Amino acid sequence: MKTLNVNLGDRSYPIFIGQDLLDDAQLFSQFATSSASFIVTNTTVEPLYADRLEASLKANGQQVIRIVLPDGESFKTWETLQTIFTGLLESNADRKATIFALGGGVIGDMAGFAAASYMRGIKFVQIPTTLLSQVDSSVGGKTGINHPLGKNMIGAFYQPIAVIIDLKTLLTLPKRELAAGLAEVVKHGAIADHLFLDWIESNAAALNNYDLSCLEHVVVKSCEIKSAVVAQDEKESGVRAHLNFGHTFGHAIETGMGYGEWLHGEAVGCGMAIAAELSVQLGYLSLEDKNRLIRIIQTLHLPTKAPQWDTSKYLSYMSHDKKAESGQIKYIVLEELGQAKVQKVDDDLVISTLKVAGAI
Amino acid sequence: MKTLNVNLGDRSYPIFIGQDLLDDAQLFSQFATSSASFIVTNTTVEPLYADRLEASLKANGQQVIRIVLPDGESFKTWETLQTIFTGLLESNADRKATIFALGGGVIGDMAGFAAASYMRGIKFVQIPTTLLSQVDSSVGGKTGINHPLGKNMIGAFYQPIAVIIDLKTLLTLPKRELAAGLAEVVKHGAIADHLFLDWIESNAAALNNYDLSCLEHVVVKSCEIKSAVVAQDEKESGVRAHLNFGHTFGHAIETGMGYGEWLHGEAVGCGMAIAAELSVQLGYLSLEDKNRLIRIIQTLHLPTKAPQWDTSKYLSYMSHDKKAESGQIKYIVLEELGQAKVQKVDDDLVISTLKVAGAI
Repeated sequence: MKTLNVNLGDRSYPIFIGQDLLDDAQLFSQFATSSASFIVTNTTVEPLYADRLEASLKANGQQVIRIVLPDGESFKTWETLQTIFTGLLESNADRKATIFALGGGVIGDMAGFAAASYMRGIKFVQIPTTLLSQVDSSVGGKTGINHPLGKNMIGAFYQPIAVIIDLKTLLTLPKRELAAGLAEVVKHGAIADHLFLDWIESNAAALNNYDLSCLEHVVVKSCEIKSAVVAQDEKESGVRAHLNFGHTFGHAIETGMGYGEWLHGEAVGCGMAIAAELSVQLGYLSLEDKNRLIRIIQTLHLPTKAPQWDTSKYLSYMSHDKKAESGQIKYIVLEELGQAKVQKVDDDLVISTLKVAGAI
Repeated sequence: MKTLNVNLGDRSYPIFIGQDLLDDAQLFSQFATSSASFIVTNTTVEPLYADRLEASLKANGQQVIRIVLPDGESFKTWETLQTIFTGLLESNADRKATIFALGGGVIGDMAGFAAASYMRGIKFVQIPTTLLSQVDSSVGGKTGINHPLGKNMIGAFYQPIAVIIDLKTLLTLPKRELAAGLAEVVKHGAIADHLFLDWIESNAAALNNYDLSCLEHVVVKSCEIKSAVVAQDEKESGVRAHLNFGHTFGHAIETGMGYGEWLHGEAVGCGMAIAAELSVQLGYLSLEDKNRLIRIIQTLHLPTKAPQWDTSKYLSYMSHDKKAESGQIKYIVLEELGQAKVQKVDDDLVISTLKVAGAI
């Protein structure tokens, strides 16, 4: 088992990464409280892993209550969140209760926001079971739900007390979701570590093939890169924005297609291809490096061809992005592979980029 | 104009108290941002004060958008909160937008929670227009909404960037709401300052009569007492619990009657009478001091006679209180007038207290 630490002063927490951690009752002993433990999970993950987690908690004398949600991004809504609150209240959950978020990013985001808001804040532990959530969403304290008018518009910065990553849960992940997680892994290399990007390129086949030691490497590296960024800028007033590389275009694609049509990671893969093109248009990235990045994305079975829409549709979905300020969008571009920066860009250049990328 | 400060490190903020502050465009200049200003108010307060606030903001070049909610505790729900989010999104509110909560405690709690959750947190200014919100709810950062199974169960600790109290707004307050606000004023004296309690006793008639200089005194004193407590214990792990004096019984009464039947302050007035009786039963408070406190509450036209219910109904509503831990309720009792403490109490003694108080 490897242990990393997210350094956030009195909100610091450990990330445990290893195999079969779900059965490690000793590890869970530190989360035994005077109150009850709530497993928040979904109908897909529950039959796979909830019994093992429950056994580890019960071995520590915990009363365990399950709250099982429907599976999918389309359920990342207030209504589903309300079922968590109702479950907590019906079981008389008090301020000392702990929520264990067992599942992917949607579960982590919703259970985290529920923990942030229930009685104005109770403890929660992230137990991400998808690659996307292990390398990205479980670390950093972003929680929330979607609003009919925008993705992740309602939420909180709320840190878990720990992240427990059992790598073997990746073995039950559909290929498409594995690829979606690898999109964020590529992003970490692209914005912060060109050597890691080289490594991903060399080990793409093993990654596509669920090689656990390769997956461990990308999870550890991703958590390291992301924690370092979050420790510098918890609430995204500066460098944390780099983590949004590919996301402005990606969110537009996700929203425009309707939530759930494309997986988040797929939209981000495609968004990175467009953002790389924008970096070329701005004169930063070489054509060769852009093509290399796009090739890596493709090798991991991710789309790089954006849906074709009207210019106005793209711009309108992009302007709803949370990163927009006074209608002005801040783009994350690459100065070179492994080095990102924030930049305002004229609409004209964005439009010509979308044209070159074949999106309009 | 008097200025107090709530000392919370990098979340510190000023409280401005004076007359006609709504028209003080100079005061509002510090809240002019690069983005839009949103006035969140209700259908009762809007026609009274929104124009003046809007003028002061516009004088500083702000674009102003109003979000007008239905009035009343029964609307302190997710559905109403959602209309705030929809209003913000439809006007393309970005992360630099500021919410101005213009109204009583319900508006402040909902607008504050909306500010805490919109894009994971935007700025907000409290402009409380009721006595209850001026002396209590606008200070300290508790925000939230009700859940069908419990009051204030969903929310956040989220501090405003300022509280602006225009005392003259109290002149349009119905007598019943004035009295409800005075309940929290009495509470501040009872838990923290017996000399202030003496002063309230001596000036009860003037307070009942909307005397602005007397009202200024109780607002300033209350904000001082509450800010000092909040500065010591922002998230209620210790001394902040003292502010809940009268609230465990009060919440049970409020919930049992159905939200909105009794005003919050009325339930707290009655709850303080029961909590004082409990303090007597525990051997702390003299019978004389208890009777004096009850007399003060009555002089301010607040109920001190609790509704009569089954024991089980009282205990069940009380056990849903947020202050309960593992089913054990922590009571706030008075060691003497001006001095509170937290105490666990056996159900037997609670039941005999409810009997003596005529509640069961």
